[in-house]
Amino acid sequence: MNRPVRARVAVVGAGPAGLLLARLLHRSGIDCVVLESRDRGYVEQRQRAGILEQGTVDTLRRAGAAARLEREGMPHDGIELRFGGVRHRIDFPSLTDGSRVWVYAQTEVVKDLIALQLRDGAPLYFDAPVHAVEGADSDSCVVHYTHEGQPRTLTCDYVIGCDGFHGVVSGAVPAGATRVHERTYPYSWLGVLADAPPAYDELIYAHSARGFALASMRSPSVSRLYLQVPNGEDPDAWSGNRIWDELDLRLGADTSWRLHRGPLTAKSVLPMRSRVTEPMRYGRILLAGDAAHTVPPTGAKGLNLAASDVTVLAAAFAELYDSGSTELLDAYSDICLRRIWRAEHFSYVLTTALHTAPDQSSFDARLQQAQLDRLASSPHAAAELAANYTGTALPRISERRGTAAPRDLAM
Amino acid sequence: MNRPVRARVAVVGAGPAGLLLARLLHRSGIDCVVLESRDRGYVEQRQRAGILEQGTVDTLRRAGAAARLEREGMPHDGIELRFGGVRHRIDFPSLTDGSRVWVYAQTEVVKDLIALQLRDGAPLYFDAPVHAVEGADSDSCVVHYTHEGQPRTLTCDYVIGCDGFHGVVSGAVPAGATRVHERTYPYSWLGVLADAPPAYDELIYAHSARGFALASMRSPSVSRLYLQVPNGEDPDAWSGNRIWDELDLRLGADTSWRLHRGPLTAKSVLPMRSRVTEPMRYGRILLAGDAAHTVPPTGAKGLNLAASDVTVLAAAFAELYDSGSTELLDAYSDICLRRIWRAEHFSYVLTTALHTAPDQSSFDARLQQAQLDRLASSPHAAAELAANYTGTALPRISERRGTAAPRDLAM
Repeated sequence: MNRPVRARVAVVGAGPAGLLLARLLHRSGIDCVVLESRDRGYVEQRQRAGILEQGTVDTLRRAGAAARLEREGMPHDGIELRFGGVRHRIDFPSLTDGSRVWVYAQTEVVKDLIALQLRDGAPLYFDAPVHAVEGADSDSCVVHYTHEGQPRTLTCDYVIGCDGFHGVVSGAVPAGATRVHERTYPYSWLGVLADAPPAYDELIYAHSARGFALASMRSPSVSRLYLQVPNGEDPDAWSGNRIWDELDLRLGADTSWRLHRGPLTAKSVLPMRSRVTEPMRYGRILLAGDAAHTVPPTGAKGLNLAASDVTVLAAAFAELYDSGSTELLDAYSDICLRRIWRAEHFSYVLTTALHTAPDQSSFDARLQQAQLDRLASSPHAAAELAANYTGTALPRISERRGTAAPRDLAM
Repeated sequence: MNRPVRARVAVVGAGPAGLLLARLLHRSGIDCVVLESRDRGYVEQRQRAGILEQGTVDTLRRAGAAARLEREGMPHDGIELRFGGVRHRIDFPSLTDGSRVWVYAQTEVVKDLIALQLRDGAPLYFDAPVHAVEGADSDSCVVHYTHEGQPRTLTCDYVIGCDGFHGVVSGAVPAGATRVHERTYPYSWLGVLADAPPAYDELIYAHSARGFALASMRSPSVSRLYLQVPNGEDPDAWSGNRIWDELDLRLGADTSWRLHRGPLTAKSVLPMRSRVTEPMRYGRILLAGDAAHTVPPTGAKGLNLAASDVTVLAAAFAELYDSGSTELLDAYSDICLRRIWRAEHFSYVLTTALHTAPDQSSFDARLQQAQLDRLASSPHAAAELAANYTGTALPRISERRGTAAPRDLAM
C-alpha cells in the first residue's frame, strides 16, 4: 500500500489503547495511521495485565476483535481474599446483578488487534518512532517520525497519544497546559510467568505480614504470580526456589495449600504508581490510556481504562466526521476523568488495604486488618469491591450532554 | 449511708461509661462504688458527644435511665453530606433496614444517670481522686483515694478504669502488659455551643477546600457547631463573627443557605486522636470507654463504644456473681476489640474523607473527591456508611463462646 502523508487521525503507540482505537475507527470508515516506535515482536510479547471487564469485552466485540477471546478467554465469577488465616471469596454475580470479568492476557488482545489491522491493510507501522508533534493549537497537526531510516511527516486533524507513561505525545503539550496528579508507593511487585497450571480457579489476593502476594493466571497451563518487594529490588536476588517458597508462605498461610511449581519464563520488577493528567486534551492532541493515567496494578484497571477511553474517543470521532459536531470530542476529557478517578480511588484503596508498608505503624496494621475484616463481613463492603472490580458500563453520552434520550456509546 | 470499705466492683470515673456500668450493676444487685476526681457540676457540664446509636439507647432503657431521653431525645433518620457544591443525604432507615440514631447530649445522659444513682443511694463519690490501685494480679484489689480531705481505701474484686484518656487506672497497669496503638491527625476541631435553633433538621457534614465543618445540635434551641482548625489553634483567635462567617462559607458553599446565629455559650479546641489499648484488661483491672480507646469525634463513636464496653462488662459480672463463671469476663477484651477496631476504621475513614490535610497533595485532593462522589453515587458505599454510623447490635455472647444457642447481652 502507499504510505499515507495525510490522515484524519494519527495514533501514536500500538499498545491496546492505540490498536483498539485504530480498529474502531477503521470499522467506522475513519482513516487513521498507527505509529509504533518498537517492533512487532516486542509489542506482542510485552507482559501486562490480563483481566478484562465486561465493558472491555463488549468493546472488543464491537471492534470485531473478540473471536479468539470468546474461545480462549476464561470468565471469572469471583476472587479470593486471604488474610490472617481467613479465606474469603468475593462472588461477583451475586454481588453485582450478574457481572463477571474475563481472564485473557493483554498480549493476546494486542496480537488479535494487530492481525486484524494488517489483514485489512490498515496503516500500522512498527519501528516508526515519533520525534515531534506540531500544530496542536492550529488548523491541523504534523507528526514527524522516522521509518525505514527515513524522516517522514504525517499531516492529520488529530493526534492521539497512546504511547504510555512519559510518551512523546504528552511531551508535546506545552508546560502548564495540563496538570499532573501523582502518588508513588513504598513497594513494587516482582512478577513472574510460570509454565505451571494454576492451583486455583480464581485469582487470590493475599495479605500477610510478609507482604502482599497475588496468584493470577494467563491460561489453564500458565500461572502469573506476583510478590510485593521493596522499591529498587533486584530481580536477580530472587531465585526460582525463593520465589516459590515465598509465594507459598504468603498465599498458603495457615493452610496446607501449595502452588503447582513449574519453570519460570519471565521475571521482572514492576513499579506502583498512581498518576492522572488533566485535562486529557490540548487542542488537537488527545491522550488515552497510560499516556494520560496510570494506576497501581492491584485492581487490574489499567487496560480497562484504556479501553473505555478509546471507546469514548471512537464515538466522538464518529460523531465529528458524521455530523461535523465536536460536542462529544469536547466532552472527552470530562467523560473519561470521572471514570478514571473512580478507578484511581478503587486501585488506591485495594493497594493500601493489601500491602504492608515498610513504615506501617501498629495502628495502621490493625486498621488494615479491620478494613479486610469488613470486606469479609459486610455485604455492602463486598458489593462495593465487586462493583469496582467488575467495572461499570460506559456512561451514556446523553447524561453528559443533557439531552433527553439516552444513547449508548456503542457504535 | 455508711462509707463502704469493701465492694465487689470499684468503678473509677463518673463519665458515661462509669455511671452506666454502675447503674447496670446496681440493677443486677452487684455492689459497686464509683469514685470521681472532679465535682458533680464539672462532670454534668463537660461538653462531649451527642449522638446515640440504637444499641446505646437500648442499654440506657435496660438501665432504667431512658425516661427523659424518650421525651427529649430527637431521633434522626439521616445525615447530609456537602462537598463540591453537592448536597447528598444519607438515609439511614432505607439503607439499614430501619436503623436510626438519637440526638441527646452526653451531658444529659450523665445527669440522668447521676440522679438515678443518688436517688437509689448507690455509692457515688465526687471530689474523690484515686491515687493508686494495688493487687491487680493478686486475690483482690485495693484502691487508694482521697475524699473529704482524708485518705481512704476500698478493697474490691475488680477495678474498672472508666477515667478517660491517660487515666489513673490504666497508669496502674505495668509497662509492657498492654500495648497501645495510636494515630494523631494534623488538624483539630474548634467546637462551639450556640443559643440558636439549628437551621436544619439533621447533622450536616461538610467538606471544602477551607476545611471540614459540622453542623450539629443539642436541642431544638441549641446548636453545636464545629470547624476544622490547625493543631495548636488558640480559640481566642476566633471571634463569634469569624466563627459564624467561616461556618457559613464551609457549610453553605454554592448555596444561599445560612445558619441561624445566636450567642455562643462555649468554645474550645478539641484534638483528634485514634488510640486503642490491647488487651483491655490486666488481672483484676479492666478498662472501658476512653480509658481503653479513643476515636476522632467525626463518626460520633466514642460514647457509643463506651456504652457497648460496659454492656459487655455488666453481663460478665452478672454471670460471674450468678454462676461463678469468669468465661465472659475473660472474653471481655476480645468481644469489645472487634467492635472497637471496626469503629476505629470507620472513624478514620470518615475523618480523612472529610478533612483537608495541611500537606494534602493534588492527587490526595482528587482521591478524596472521588471517595465522596462514591458515597453520593454508590448505594453500597452509602449503605456501608449508614451501617457504621448507626452501629450494630452487640454481639451475642454465644458467638464468641461457641455455644449453640444465641443469648443476648441484655440483662
